[in-house]
Amino acid sequence: MKHERTSGNEFDFIDWVKTKLGKLPPEVLVGPGDDCAVIHYANDDQILLKTDSLLEGVHVQFSDPAKPGYATPEQAGYKVMARSISDVAAMGGVPCYATIATALPQGRGPAFREGLLAGLQRAAHAHNTFIIGGDTKSWSADDKLVLSVHLFGDMQGFHPVLRSGAREGDAIFVTGELGGSILGKHVSFAPRVGEGRWFASVHAHAMIDLSDGLSGDLLHICKASGVGALIEAEKLPVSKDALILEKRDGMSALEHALHDGEDFELLVCIAREKADEVQKTWPFATKLTRIGTVTEKAGGLRISHGGKKQPLPIKAYEHEL
Amino acid sequence: MKHERTSGNEFDFIDWVKTKLGKLPPEVLVGPGDDCAVIHYANDDQILLKTDSLLEGVHVQFSDPAKPGYATPEQAGYKVMARSISDVAAMGGVPCYATIATALPQGRGPAFREGLLAGLQRAAHAHNTFIIGGDTKSWSADDKLVLSVHLFGDMQGFHPVLRSGAREGDAIFVTGELGGSILGKHVSFAPRVGEGRWFASVHAHAMIDLSDGLSGDLLHICKASGVGALIEAEKLPVSKDALILEKRDGMSALEHALHDGEDFELLVCIAREKADEVQKTWPFATKLTRIGTVTEKAGGLRISHGGKKQPLPIKAYEHEL
Repeated sequence: MKHERTSGNEFDFIDWVKTKLGKLPPEVLVGPGDDCAVIHYANDDQILLKTDSLLEGVHVQFSDPAKPGYATPEQAGYKVMARSISDVAAMGGVPCYATIATALPQGRGPAFREGLLAGLQRAAHAHNTFIIGGDTKSWSADDKLVLSVHLFGDMQGFHPVLRSGAREGDAIFVTGELGGSILGKHVSFAPRVGEGRWFASVHAHAMIDLSDGLSGDLLHICKASGVGALIEAEKLPVSKDALILEKRDGMSALEHALHDGEDFELLVCIAREKADEVQKTWPFATKLTRIGTVTEKAGGLRISHGGKKQPLPIKAYEHEL
Repeated sequence: MKHERTSGNEFDFIDWVKTKLGKLPPEVLVGPGDDCAVIHYANDDQILLKTDSLLEGVHVQFSDPAKPGYATPEQAGYKVMARSISDVAAMGGVPCYATIATALPQGRGPAFREGLLAGLQRAAHAHNTFIIGGDTKSWSADDKLVLSVHLFGDMQGFHPVLRSGAREGDAIFVTGELGGSILGKHVSFAPRVGEGRWFASVHAHAMIDLSDGLSGDLLHICKASGVGALIEAEKLPVSKDALILEKRDGMSALEHALHDGEDFELLVCIAREKADEVQKTWPFATKLTRIGTVTEKAGGLRISHGGKKQPLPIKAYEHEL
């Protein structure tokens, strides 16, 4: 496994694109830079549009089951659809319809494309999402698979929970357990759609799904909201897979939980005065853990460990192969 | 130039995908297989979703200006956005918002990506369409560019004009001139959005944009509508570029007009009794030509030339490099 640091390019690119797009019309409530774009469509519906892609050799590899990042075609299809659904979940929305763009290397055979479609459908069906169109183009056998999902969702009466709404004093929660997803969860995670809806229903201030890793995604929220954050190391829900990796690579389980990408859990900021009630009334089997507090911007991102506060390093690891 | 025949794969693949998708919900008025998917959304709005992709080495090449298919990054961006807009136009719809998925080879430099975005925006702005989000992932310098556009449009009060509505006796019209687009029009065409809206306003029976070539796209309409067609060779609006190619490659200008892909003109079927009125009231500078008649299915696709009718060969050429 090669745990490559995400190059600055991707994030810089989004910032750069934003500067080039000019003024968006007023019905575009959220443009580039959040989990989804949000459009105030006719009659108070709020529509979500999300685009995500899976690149062979970057996000998955099909050739060697013994090596990290291996996925069957079915898992690859599942992953890219579930990633997009996770982004809709991170706004508190409901996924509805998907179209698929595929660049398919020639000669992969029918089982390969049937696997992709079966995985896409498995993720879609699990969340009442319908694949309603797409575009398949074949290219040289030397080229690699690109699978893009375009997802249409809506808010069905709720307001979208943005990255930019966190306020000083908010309690920070995370669903599930963190770290080590490369051992399997990165292709088998369940997008937290119901959970995201519930957070929208209790008027969470800010939300994001953990694709870049807790530290990187928390930074996204802090930047967008103009705040800092303090994470309590002892409270982090460290996954079993993070513990397994600790024994293998010498990076601590805590570091895996803080920085590994592709957990696809929800990171949520909620008004302090609601925090106890949220924990008491949480209706899901999914674990919910309060891991920290939103602080003033000047504090930056910090982590407390054994009573000692220090800056939280931002690693934003992604599972690039 | 290599004029490759489109492999059967792409069309077969769509048919195959349709068999795998299962039953779509009733609000999905049009699923895979037309120019766009159509959703009957809340309060009688009809929404269009379209996905299209451009693959380096298949649809454009960036390396050799002397060879066919060459495009600047700006032209490539323009092309993929304009292709999608053309599909919305072919339903009579209005393009509104776009998201972009990009697989970007490393090391292409800032001018390359700025060119792509500038071209995407030029096509979008020409049709009041806003780029509101997207996803950019980089991969190896050895990999190639994939640029996918996801377009959201709507019908704004009109009914979408499908491929499936052609009826025996309908007059067949085409906009613009046909053939030879590889000489430049394939990256510079103007999607016929206003014209498509107008055809929807006069209740055209069926419509498609010419991406696969007249013969192939007419076949799509005939198959979807369960009809045949008779094209009059003498009436075809043959482009100057088709005449130029005739001198170069020995294929007649008529054959280029019939089979060359990527003209992105509209092919429209209109009730016979409206045909004269349509020609009289046509409000656009774009040429409009009546080129034939929808016939019974048993007749198949035919062409009359010098008073002689014969089967129209289906070549469905595409500009694959």
